[in-house]
Amino acid sequence: MKEVFEPNSVAVIGASNKPGKVGYVLVKNLIDSGFKGKIFPVNPKEKIILGLRCFPSILDIPETIDMALIAIGAIRVPKVVEECGKKGVKLAVIFSAGFAEIGNVELERRIVEIAKSYGLRLLGPNCAGLIINKLNLHACMEARINKGDLALAAQSGAFGALVISMVKSRGLGLSTFISYGNRADVDEADILQYFHEDEETKAIMMYIEGLRNGRKFIDTASKVTIQKPIIAIKVGKTPASMRAITSHTGALAGEYRIYEAAFRKCGVYLVDDILELIEVSHILSGTIAILGNKVCVVTNSGGPGVLLTDYIEVKGLEVPQLPHTLRNSLSFLPPMCSTSNPVDLTADANAERYYEVLKVLSRSNVCDYIAVIFIPPAYIDSLEVIKGIVDAWKDFGFKKPMVIYIGGEGTKEATNYAEEKGIPITIDLRSLATSIHALKFRAQYLKIISPSH
Amino acid sequence: MKEVFEPNSVAVIGASNKPGKVGYVLVKNLIDSGFKGKIFPVNPKEKIILGLRCFPSILDIPETIDMALIAIGAIRVPKVVEECGKKGVKLAVIFSAGFAEIGNVELERRIVEIAKSYGLRLLGPNCAGLIINKLNLHACMEARINKGDLALAAQSGAFGALVISMVKSRGLGLSTFISYGNRADVDEADILQYFHEDEETKAIMMYIEGLRNGRKFIDTASKVTIQKPIIAIKVGKTPASMRAITSHTGALAGEYRIYEAAFRKCGVYLVDDILELIEVSHILSGTIAILGNKVCVVTNSGGPGVLLTDYIEVKGLEVPQLPHTLRNSLSFLPPMCSTSNPVDLTADANAERYYEVLKVLSRSNVCDYIAVIFIPPAYIDSLEVIKGIVDAWKDFGFKKPMVIYIGGEGTKEATNYAEEKGIPITIDLRSLATSIHALKFRAQYLKIISPSH
Repeated sequence: MKEVFEPNSVAVIGASNKPGKVGYVLVKNLIDSGFKGKIFPVNPKEKIILGLRCFPSILDIPETIDMALIAIGAIRVPKVVEECGKKGVKLAVIFSAGFAEIGNVELERRIVEIAKSYGLRLLGPNCAGLIINKLNLHACMEARINKGDLALAAQSGAFGALVISMVKSRGLGLSTFISYGNRADVDEADILQYFHEDEETKAIMMYIEGLRNGRKFIDTASKVTIQKPIIAIKVGKTPASMRAITSHTGALAGEYRIYEAAFRKCGVYLVDDILELIEVSHILSGTIAILGNKVCVVTNSGGPGVLLTDYIEVKGLEVPQLPHTLRNSLSFLPPMCSTSNPVDLTADANAERYYEVLKVLSRSNVCDYIAVIFIPPAYIDSLEVIKGIVDAWKDFGFKKPMVIYIGGEGTKEATNYAEEKGIPITIDLRSLATSIHALKFRAQYLKIISPSH
Repeated sequence: MKEVFEPNSVAVIGASNKPGKVGYVLVKNLIDSGFKGKIFPVNPKEKIILGLRCFPSILDIPETIDMALIAIGAIRVPKVVEECGKKGVKLAVIFSAGFAEIGNVELERRIVEIAKSYGLRLLGPNCAGLIINKLNLHACMEARINKGDLALAAQSGAFGALVISMVKSRGLGLSTFISYGNRADVDEADILQYFHEDEETKAIMMYIEGLRNGRKFIDTASKVTIQKPIIAIKVGKTPASMRAITSHTGALAGEYRIYEAAFRKCGVYLVDDILELIEVSHILSGTIAILGNKVCVVTNSGGPGVLLTDYIEVKGLEVPQLPHTLRNSLSFLPPMCSTSNPVDLTADANAERYYEVLKVLSRSNVCDYIAVIFIPPAYIDSLEVIKGIVDAWKDFGFKKPMVIYIGGEGTKEATNYAEEKGIPITIDLRSLATSIHALKFRAQYLKIISPSH
């Protein structure tokens, strides 16, 4: 799918000189984002749009066009799709609404037929466009987002915008965002296939209302998720939300439990919450997945350690008591520390105390995963302490997976330090537990797919 | 409890001139926060601390002392508590650790006995102090927090610090924070009683590891929650976390289900998550609670509307289909809008569209609660639109409760506008559903307590 989603040239059909119009915003965003290819506005009534020469029709452009962004009235879309086909366009992104989602099924079928006859692929209609950050391609109405290693696919553009804003405020970035609206042609499986091929993407986030071709999705997801974890929110758990889905994108939601079972089978991890979607994907993008159920919690703060223990065990994982031999090898800790599990290093824990404890636990086979909580007290140099944790991760984290939570006041510096070293941090305590659960799920999936693992 | 928690004068025993020492930070925080009463450092080795005259012992201070902050070694605490008793102090806040939480039960019992004999109350030991914002009293190691109408009680100081940092980054404030550590004397019920008396507190947040005196808590909570909603996180759901609690604050966690049942009986609403604790408390501080199960969702964005519908119905609430008569009275909406439930006003919804729809729904008896989603698209003036929603809230929200979610890019302005008008906003979609569930729970509790309601 790379040739479909990675254009050298983009035409904007319905380009406009009026700020506020979709056709204006699209041209402006392509220019402002510094798209590496060529941009061609198309509008029979204009000569120049935002400094670029404007063409009456896509057929008048004297160069090859790989992608067309279509932002005109629904009724005029079939003719334009025909022209895109003739021009040899590879992907037509149809922003226009007014198709199956309001009952105009026939109009939608028509554009699909036209496109098929030319080998042209369609994204949408009723979609919010796409972002391919490595090409600086911002073919989208939504705000810009930094480069990162998470990809996002969403039927709903507004949902995508919401996730993007949360990824941003979280200090993370995206490789790619693809919104696919009514997915008359390009569907979830095609998009997954592209994420699979895209070298910038390390983990995949999806928002799914309903699948049209379940078989195709399962086949593709089963394969993709071996290389790159897929984390999804599937809505439509109840009759009311299933009803709402139909009126939103014309999709049939289907029984949630059936989806749940299918996703489990193809290694797609389901979450309920947007923050969790982001946090779990982020952790999975950079942490090894191993089989095993036992988690050791290391914390500098009792209360959050207890809360995390609840989250972990409610997920069906275990926070086991440590055997005496192991507790003895932690006897270098000051007396106010607890060598039970959670291991409480207390508020004055420094880099060395974290490092030495993580070393001992990493080398023991009592735990499969280590969950680390670091909540810098006001009087502690958080950057100093995180260095000890980061060193332990680098020395032992490739064999014994560690998931680190940083919370509280003034933690940005510590978080940035770890992230710059390539160590993913979570800022949500519950998501720490969910991430370990997702890693275990992933290891089980990989084991089933390839038992020699 | 007002005379206990609202001092005119505070002594800091163990005051220090060394930055980094607890006794230094406490004096500095009291000065910096602009405490309205008098501050007296106590340390036999110093003459002046941070510009204030320092006394060798609390008994040497020539004025009445209402509150003493104690930050000295555990072993010297009994003598100092005795002196506080003699001096007529009302509350001694013991920051020192080294009592029951590490097995020194006898030492803890001794200080309680001494205090009792003088009618002196103790907070702690092993606590992180307190903040009474209306007095600018920051008798606490943690960072400052703006004034607000939420009160927070936590055994764990670090947990309190974490909540405070999240309340801050959320743009909200606290009336009061009280950390109570081992709660050798002042316990959850005493603190609730103070929150009850405090005119600045509108809703109460609690983090509970275990209760010592369940009967007393239930009696107090049953009464307090009639006036002010209490929202709590109770940890200790599993054997491992119960074990962790014991080593953390020496408390016995007890069976979670028993707590759950007791809390339900006394009107305390339980949540699992810190963000939810804050969001639900905030919404409950300013929204009427009514009986009823039916929720109408009004949104400008389909996907999040569907996700919210899932959250609401999974909570056992209902998002019913709207009857034809009601849908007819929404026929003024443009054709791309959906008059099903969720009512989808689509991305270009303006203030008037929101206002008119909220008016119609408020006056109908089809729904008991209205859930409003506003995710400003990039090309919309969010301040303009929120005015329509705020007007509707002010005109109808006192009879038909509305809970508003604002999410996405650049929503700070809209959120601030609503909050300044006294209308609580949530920034977490799941918490919107939980808030309505909590409001319904509250209405049921009030109905049981006072059936004539």
